[in-house]
Amino acid sequence: MKFLKLAHVAKDINISGGMLVEPNDLDDRVRYLDVLYAHLRYSTKCPMGSSYGTDGAKDTIELLAAVFGGRDVLKEKPAVITLINTISPLKLDERQTGALLEYAIMNQPVIIASLVMAGSTGPATLAGCMAVQNAEVLAGITLAQTVSPGTPVIYGSASSVTDMHSGSVSIANGEAGLMAASAAQMAKFYGVPCRSGGGVTDSKTVDGQAGYESAIMLMAPVSAGTNIILHTAGILQYWLCMSFEKFVMDAEIAGILRRFRRGIEIDEQSLAFDVVSKVGPGNHFLNQKHTRIHHKTEFRKPMLSDRQSYEGWAIESLNTEDRAHQLCQKMVADYEDPGLDEGLQKELQSYINSRKEELLK
Amino acid sequence: MKFLKLAHVAKDINISGGMLVEPNDLDDRVRYLDVLYAHLRYSTKCPMGSSYGTDGAKDTIELLAAVFGGRDVLKEKPAVITLINTISPLKLDERQTGALLEYAIMNQPVIIASLVMAGSTGPATLAGCMAVQNAEVLAGITLAQTVSPGTPVIYGSASSVTDMHSGSVSIANGEAGLMAASAAQMAKFYGVPCRSGGGVTDSKTVDGQAGYESAIMLMAPVSAGTNIILHTAGILQYWLCMSFEKFVMDAEIAGILRRFRRGIEIDEQSLAFDVVSKVGPGNHFLNQKHTRIHHKTEFRKPMLSDRQSYEGWAIESLNTEDRAHQLCQKMVADYEDPGLDEGLQKELQSYINSRKEELLK
Repeated sequence: MKFLKLAHVAKDINISGGMLVEPNDLDDRVRYLDVLYAHLRYSTKCPMGSSYGTDGAKDTIELLAAVFGGRDVLKEKPAVITLINTISPLKLDERQTGALLEYAIMNQPVIIASLVMAGSTGPATLAGCMAVQNAEVLAGITLAQTVSPGTPVIYGSASSVTDMHSGSVSIANGEAGLMAASAAQMAKFYGVPCRSGGGVTDSKTVDGQAGYESAIMLMAPVSAGTNIILHTAGILQYWLCMSFEKFVMDAEIAGILRRFRRGIEIDEQSLAFDVVSKVGPGNHFLNQKHTRIHHKTEFRKPMLSDRQSYEGWAIESLNTEDRAHQLCQKMVADYEDPGLDEGLQKELQSYINSRKEELLK
Repeated sequence: MKFLKLAHVAKDINISGGMLVEPNDLDDRVRYLDVLYAHLRYSTKCPMGSSYGTDGAKDTIELLAAVFGGRDVLKEKPAVITLINTISPLKLDERQTGALLEYAIMNQPVIIASLVMAGSTGPATLAGCMAVQNAEVLAGITLAQTVSPGTPVIYGSASSVTDMHSGSVSIANGEAGLMAASAAQMAKFYGVPCRSGGGVTDSKTVDGQAGYESAIMLMAPVSAGTNIILHTAGILQYWLCMSFEKFVMDAEIAGILRRFRRGIEIDEQSLAFDVVSKVGPGNHFLNQKHTRIHHKTEFRKPMLSDRQSYEGWAIESLNTEDRAHQLCQKMVADYEDPGLDEGLQKELQSYINSRKEELLK
């Protein structure tokens, strides 16, 4: 719930997410129902659908249809996006395929993503991994288009590297950055949108490594033109851990990179030749009207990054993790329940309860 | 000296640097002589020349000529690179211009760099700052080419943003990343190499912010095709502080991005269709000969980043700064004096001593 509130409040996060954390206190056969309910009940951002087989997809669609005005409206105006993962090398399992088909029939967008681990589930060469990935993603896309021509599909990649010294996976490094960037290029080649990258790290704590790895793994896809990034915020320890402070730090990185992606606007106003000419060599622009007008939209105001003087900073000497902890508490406090019609709440809960009875039988 | 040893040992740093830190214990009229001597004596990487006016440039050239076989050889085979900073907006001071002319006459490469601070020494629009920067750099390049046609010049940018809330400069953010990337594009337009970016941060300590800001400010120019990056390693607190641990962390980021820049090699070997076909769906590549051969060159081995299991990491629970501290000590211990002919050492010292007498008179 706290991650959901953070995702809802964070202005540089567009999607509320799917299984933000795996709630192990709930029965694994039905927990996707509670998670989806939480997204619909507590956030107005786009949720992600369940890919737990045909059942998961069907239930997602039923719940969404209730919220968005019925199945026909939903088919016309898709309201959920779902991640379908292939099994590298070169497999699609029954559960993910089942979900894919249900969403395709209902015209809901699906991300077909390959997660090759170079050196273990793919060759130890990046080109080889991209080839395996490409085959898997194209297979998924072809299946979706065959079942339901025109299904919105997204070319997905979350490929990584096997560290040959420890045997563990490494999800944040230059090689993985290259695979995230090249996925964007392949998607562009086929004329479909791309999902790749994320604020991911192998680090176990919110430290310098968590900062540089997450920044690199977000910036590579942003620079290459990826359209949707999952796992933007919160990940530590190669997918295995979610941290509140890391979530806030990654949301700040996302804000910086969103400004980066906006680029440089070039027109007469922004070139400001008249202002430069008026100010002249050696003088300053601080008291210019042009400065007062433009700095507010041109410069992003950081929410987490420290820009104080050393003396100002040294009073409390808070590092990024400390400040993220404070900001996290503020964001959760700032969260406002977007409200969901009470009748609708009851309808969704009643559906969920009857489904739970069936599934747990 | 410790920074110089680190720069010499760090394999992803090519230049030993210039004024690595400002040695305030030495008289500011002559300290450039001691600093340059240290670079020539203790490192074989390319040093940076003094831009302290005509005197600084002349002394740099004299010392280099002694080491590299005389003025004629030096003119033929440049051995030093120098940073000439403009004064924004739209000025070149006597000291930097004096140095520029000396180096141009001797055919030594010069970086003409503009450091516009958007909102104070330049307009609060990035386009306006790039225009001011462009005018300044072109003025410097024109001057160098007029005095000595064919002088190797580099288009330089280290532009930043004025934080309007604190009044202080912010050297690491999306806006500064854009200016670093667009400088590379302008340089390409004029057909000259570019210097921009750096492992820079506004943070006061080696924390998450230092990690993500430095990564972004290194990755923006790397992705845009910048040719030379200064201040790659060590900076904290918007240029005001150098840290040993930050140096090591930035050297790691540089290594990751060097791998990123190498890109993906695509040929029959790396595509590995035969290996993929042999392994088949659902199996693994761990015991393939192709994996054993290629992982060593395809995957970069980190020097600082942690990829252990949580259990392995938790034994010592060292964060990035702790590990960087250990690695820094190891790197300094690994440093080997590259040696400089003793006769030459005496010759350089005798020149420096006589110059000091003149300058301190």
